[in-house]
Amino acid sequence: MKKVVIAYSGGLDTSYCAKYLSEEENFEVHAVSVNTGGFSEEEIEKIGSNAKKIGAATYKNIDAVSSFYNKVVKYLIYGNVLKNNTYPLSVSAERIVQALEIINYAKETGAEYIAHGSTGAGNDQVRFDMIFQLIAPNIKIITPIRDKKLTRQEEIDYLKSKGVEMNWEKAKYSVNKGLWGTSVGGAETLTSEKPLPEEAYPSQLKEKEPQQITLGFTKGEFTSLNGKENAPEKNIQLLEEIAKQYAIGRDIHVGDTIIGIKGRVGFEAAAAQIIIKSHHLLEKHTLSKWQLQHKDYLANWYGTHLHEGQYLEPVMRDLEAFLESSQKQVTGEVYVSLHPYRFQLDGIRSDFDLMNSGFGKYGEENNAWTADDAKGFIKILSNSGKIYQYVKEKG
Amino acid sequence: MKKVVIAYSGGLDTSYCAKYLSEEENFEVHAVSVNTGGFSEEEIEKIGSNAKKIGAATYKNIDAVSSFYNKVVKYLIYGNVLKNNTYPLSVSAERIVQALEIINYAKETGAEYIAHGSTGAGNDQVRFDMIFQLIAPNIKIITPIRDKKLTRQEEIDYLKSKGVEMNWEKAKYSVNKGLWGTSVGGAETLTSEKPLPEEAYPSQLKEKEPQQITLGFTKGEFTSLNGKENAPEKNIQLLEEIAKQYAIGRDIHVGDTIIGIKGRVGFEAAAAQIIIKSHHLLEKHTLSKWQLQHKDYLANWYGTHLHEGQYLEPVMRDLEAFLESSQKQVTGEVYVSLHPYRFQLDGIRSDFDLMNSGFGKYGEENNAWTADDAKGFIKILSNSGKIYQYVKEKG
Amino acid sequence: MKKVVIAYSGGLDTSYCAKYLSEEENFEVHAVSVNTGGFSEEEIEKIGSNAKKIGAATYKNIDAVSSFYNKVVKYLIYGNVLKNNTYPLSVSAERIVQALEIINYAKETGAEYIAHGSTGAGNDQVRFDMIFQLIAPNIKIITPIRDKKLTRQEEIDYLKSKGVEMNWEKAKYSVNKGLWGTSVGGAETLTSEKPLPEEAYPSQLKEKEPQQITLGFTKGEFTSLNGKENAPEKNIQLLEEIAKQYAIGRDIHVGDTIIGIKGRVGFEAAAAQIIIKSHHLLEKHTLSKWQLQHKDYLANWYGTHLHEGQYLEPVMRDLEAFLESSQKQVTGEVYVSLHPYRFQLDGIRSDFDLMNSGFGKYGEENNAWTADDAKGFIKILSNSGKIYQYVKEKG
Amino acid sequence: MKKVVIAYSGGLDTSYCAKYLSEEENFEVHAVSVNTGGFSEEEIEKIGSNAKKIGAATYKNIDAVSSFYNKVVKYLIYGNVLKNNTYPLSVSAERIVQALEIINYAKETGAEYIAHGSTGAGNDQVRFDMIFQLIAPNIKIITPIRDKKLTRQEEIDYLKSKGVEMNWEKAKYSVNKGLWGTSVGGAETLTSEKPLPEEAYPSQLKEKEPQQITLGFTKGEFTSLNGKENAPEKNIQLLEEIAKQYAIGRDIHVGDTIIGIKGRVGFEAAAAQIIIKSHHLLEKHTLSKWQLQHKDYLANWYGTHLHEGQYLEPVMRDLEAFLESSQKQVTGEVYVSLHPYRFQLDGIRSDFDLMNSGFGKYGEENNAWTADDAKGFIKILSNSGKIYQYVKEKG
Repeated sequence: MKKVVIAYSGGLDTSYCAKYLSEEENFEVHAVSVNTGGFSEEEIEKIGSNAKKIGAATYKNIDAVSSFYNKVVKYLIYGNVLKNNTYPLSVSAERIVQALEIINYAKETGAEYIAHGSTGAGNDQVRFDMIFQLIAPNIKIITPIRDKKLTRQEEIDYLKSKGVEMNWEKAKYSVNKGLWGTSVGGAETLTSEKPLPEEAYPSQLKEKEPQQITLGFTKGEFTSLNGKENAPEKNIQLLEEIAKQYAIGRDIHVGDTIIGIKGRVGFEAAAAQIIIKSHHLLEKHTLSKWQLQHKDYLANWYGTHLHEGQYLEPVMRDLEAFLESSQKQVTGEVYVSLHPYRFQLDGIRSDFDLMNSGFGKYGEENNAWTADDAKGFIKILSNSGKIYQYVKEKG
Repeated sequence: MKKVVIAYSGGLDTSYCAKYLSEEENFEVHAVSVNTGGFSEEEIEKIGSNAKKIGAATYKNIDAVSSFYNKVVKYLIYGNVLKNNTYPLSVSAERIVQALEIINYAKETGAEYIAHGSTGAGNDQVRFDMIFQLIAPNIKIITPIRDKKLTRQEEIDYLKSKGVEMNWEKAKYSVNKGLWGTSVGGAETLTSEKPLPEEAYPSQLKEKEPQQITLGFTKGEFTSLNGKENAPEKNIQLLEEIAKQYAIGRDIHVGDTIIGIKGRVGFEAAAAQIIIKSHHLLEKHTLSKWQLQHKDYLANWYGTHLHEGQYLEPVMRDLEAFLESSQKQVTGEVYVSLHPYRFQLDGIRSDFDLMNSGFGKYGEENNAWTADDAKGFIKILSNSGKIYQYVKEKG
Repeated sequence: MKKVVIAYSGGLDTSYCAKYLSEEENFEVHAVSVNTGGFSEEEIEKIGSNAKKIGAATYKNIDAVSSFYNKVVKYLIYGNVLKNNTYPLSVSAERIVQALEIINYAKETGAEYIAHGSTGAGNDQVRFDMIFQLIAPNIKIITPIRDKKLTRQEEIDYLKSKGVEMNWEKAKYSVNKGLWGTSVGGAETLTSEKPLPEEAYPSQLKEKEPQQITLGFTKGEFTSLNGKENAPEKNIQLLEEIAKQYAIGRDIHVGDTIIGIKGRVGFEAAAAQIIIKSHHLLEKHTLSKWQLQHKDYLANWYGTHLHEGQYLEPVMRDLEAFLESSQKQVTGEVYVSLHPYRFQLDGIRSDFDLMNSGFGKYGEENNAWTADDAKGFIKILSNSGKIYQYVKEKG
Repeated sequence: MKKVVIAYSGGLDTSYCAKYLSEEENFEVHAVSVNTGGFSEEEIEKIGSNAKKIGAATYKNIDAVSSFYNKVVKYLIYGNVLKNNTYPLSVSAERIVQALEIINYAKETGAEYIAHGSTGAGNDQVRFDMIFQLIAPNIKIITPIRDKKLTRQEEIDYLKSKGVEMNWEKAKYSVNKGLWGTSVGGAETLTSEKPLPEEAYPSQLKEKEPQQITLGFTKGEFTSLNGKENAPEKNIQLLEEIAKQYAIGRDIHVGDTIIGIKGRVGFEAAAAQIIIKSHHLLEKHTLSKWQLQHKDYLANWYGTHLHEGQYLEPVMRDLEAFLESSQKQVTGEVYVSLHPYRFQLDGIRSDFDLMNSGFGKYGEENNAWTADDAKGFIKILSNSGKIYQYVKEKG
């Protein structure tokens, strides 16, 4: 019997695929879900039980939270990556790690086929297909949803006809949750002009009293929250628990998809936004002008390549080497105030702070140089411009 | 008698310079202030009367609001320029235009000397000196504050001894106001860890009821507010009046100065922030992926060069040509909601919106291509990666 | 009868297409060739007579030399574009203009179909298809060679069977000639290790006596050769005539194709190489440091996008605006010595030369500043580094 | 007695400094020369004996060839660095390592002063002063030549008056030799229009018979020449010995100095040019498109920062991390033909060659995909452009 590993989320599309492949195409179906921080124990159990109901031969959940952090999120923090200055790449980043985990599982278990439920209209098909093909070119890819273009009703009818009765009612908003944020799509995000309503966001305002929190970073990694040390991926989750009470981190991203159309998606990513902005502030104090300049350029590209599914491009390893190297002195604490719907960066403390070190106070004191030094500096800094003006007028 | 034009703000430092140059150095002092949007009629009158009291031969205020907008602010909007992703370059940008206006005035009036009140510890000395030297290399620059390193008390004592009695009490916060934002410095900004207190900011929260406003852009310029057309510089001021009631646009900038030290400064720039974020959103809908990519890179440099006083570098004109060209289709409306201390981008409408044009709905529909097209696309997109993986394993 | 416009070169592939489409598919075939500088009068006549023999309803040659120069070559010169620091993009650039001319012809003549002879293994299919689809999405594209994967013999047999007897003997080297250079492919270029033999190159060494020539540029355009003014596209051809006698401009390009594989191709581009290097030298004298820096970055991208068929990407117009703006003072003469197989840049003369203007002689004299100015400059330039070293040791 | 370490080359300027400091300023003078590949045993001995004659308390030559290679040259090769696409940064790179070696020597020996012979008109003063100040801010810098602006004759007269009689006749061309190339300055390089005459170059044509050589690279390092393995710095010297017989590697560099003026300098760098071009060719075969793209950008900056004396900028270590990471598969052989005054890259062989791996032959065969795949690829690649064209016409 032909063996297929299916990326299984428990939703309608992947349930249809699982049933269809086992019933009509005679596959031995092995369902796999990958938890990159979005599933609770209960959800995983439910996905597993659904998989069994539908007739999967086996079901496995892969816990990839740490792998997600170490392979991708860490570098997104090093790089302060916000796509188009807005979006922390929550879903884009997750898909990469999910694809890697699933294809490796398929290889290990000797599957000849791998299936996923992506449509032909989005980025995920590219991310999945590309990583599958690169890691295991001999494993064939099956995508019934993309190929058949069925309506939801047709899928439900088929499942019913096979005795699978579940509640397939479509949620008003499709929500995708993970360690690095939650994306939210709905009728509004298919327009250009409408914002998502308050209730579309998964977290609602519960805490109105401001509080100050402290994020501790060690060589660029988020190693403590309010003085308590933990693995960075744990700290991210702890921070999210606190910050979501303030309904912080909502926005809408509009961007270019890999397939050339523009897409619009809402998201909520309180922890991601607070961490990135805090880390960036710490860097403004501890990195040199040129580190900030070149890092910004490269990190932007790191985000773009990742977004476009190019995680396995060899240049990604080179970019990671640069980013890692840049973090040697990004160690210290960042003070942040949380308020309803927003946060404020209050300041930082770091042994590597390049400000306030006795050389001079900006605009006030110049201890380390004289007025004549400054005039000499400006005179020579003006040389090229003076020559240019002279030549231009004469020329 | 030697003629000096002095950049005169009416404050202690420039008052000292004016008095000192006329009394001790026997100059005929011509005081000039340049209004880049920060002075009211009353303030200008007061500056003028102070100039007279101190003994200036003439006083002139140059209205440079439109010039400021057309020479600099326009391109900062085209480029969505936020230095280090935070600061709209409010003061940096103003200084450039002030320097240009003053040196041109000095040239016109045949002055042999030009004076300014900058210290030796900041960016402004570089911006002023550099532009002065480039535009008029034969006009000598005089900077008593930088040269003499006097304390405030010494300056006050000197002025008193010359019969100039004014209220020189130092404000707790030094505030610099202009069309493109207000900077705020104080004891806290000389530390790395302390935020500015609420009362340090010029605008206080007055309006708690949210409201939606509409910004209209024509080829990248902010041509209407809530449907009413006006010159962009007027619209900026009108928007500021509305938004400051919400205490929007506060933040602290930490950055590298031209002289190599780090500086920290608070600012409030409600209109600048709302306009830049709105304009950027409109661009995400109307510009291509590569326009967004390359524009972002160049605009970042435009901001850096401007910040460093390099407005007259010839490359700035080339960058402006790029930015101008990119704005051809950046026309449409942006909907923004104002809330206390924050704003939210709701959406846009544009004839040039590249989203929602019937080609496909992101993640949902692919009208313009088939599943097979998508598979072919991904297969070929994977070619280079497949070859790399193959060679790597074999090599 | 269905009307098809075919991009017709007179070679075996396009002859097969023309015959096949008219005979088997019942098309009214309109053959078009586009001369971007590679065809002589005689060759055009021969192509036309072949087209008739094969049964084309009409034949037209479009003279696109000036259009090629003005749309593309001009900017490649402004940008000193050499792909991977080697290849002047001779063929890549031509294909763009050929595609534009042909699709516009097809639109004008009301054709419903357009055909070209590209295979499925190269860049040209992408360049043609993409531009065709963008300019005229309703004209259907036909590509028999790509679709049918015939061998040369099968094509020849088919043509013979239809009574078309021509000399189809395959040249040992496939040569593609145009205004901006000639590409050469052969057995060697399919390997990684072998150079092309001497005889593979279209021009052979005829002139061994060195000579000095003078290239005149006006705002970046090559407006005179040895003092004689002509249209730039004419000057390019005149220079090529002289330089090819020296067998100058040969090299092999290895690069990434749009479809992800690496390709290797020989080329000969004497005029292109001499012009680009001369123009670049003139820029080193007349542009500022930052113009050279940013221009280099953008021009590299201009070349990459062009190479990848993205001529119609809107960012290309923005890049052209930057490049155009940068050329205001790129006016002067460049002196070049020609030798067998190589050339040497001797020097330049320009009214806008930023060197030698009395400010200082590099390493020898500092007229415009003092030793103390220099020390002040270096001291302040060292500020950031000093602080960093101090913090690093202490931290 | 005050102790000064002097960067001593044995020439007139540094001899003057040494004498002047010991005689007039009562210093204990410690002369140091640093060999970065330009001195023979005999020259070092002569420098040492001159130092003694002049009255230096001690003389030391530091052999820094390996240090030069490992600290700088290695990365210039990884990055294929040619400033303004021309100059291998021969002298700029040496100065950095010389400065580092000398200041470390001064620190070790407990000197309170350090002296060098640079003028106030060049780059070297910046490179020396900056590195000295950063590594040892407490060691005072003395620069008599810069400070006193003496003529050659005044220096010679002074030395004579102190009984120092040496042959100070000025060479017609000032030549600076090192591992990574030789710079040549003379009357011609102070003009914009004149090339250096044949005889100005240190190596003259001796070998007219072409020969093919093989450069072996291992992870980017030049580890063998014609099959014989040696340390890379040794291979560079061996290659130089062969290639200089062909008078290869001459050119003139025109560039921006750190102090804002343009400078022009001749150079001869046969080994550097052959190695960089060979290494680059190997990279074109073994690196991905995006590695080539981003590496090129960063390496350009690496060269610029190095040229401007910013070797200690922390970003340099980050750039080196990127460059190092990129070289993992840059292993293989490059075949080069040497001819009088020029060389030709014949081809390469590498286990990591991304060309010719069975996926397809450029322009000829597409084994790994079908015509339909290619059409799907192009269709989707055209999506964004089609939407743009549609919107533009409609808008």
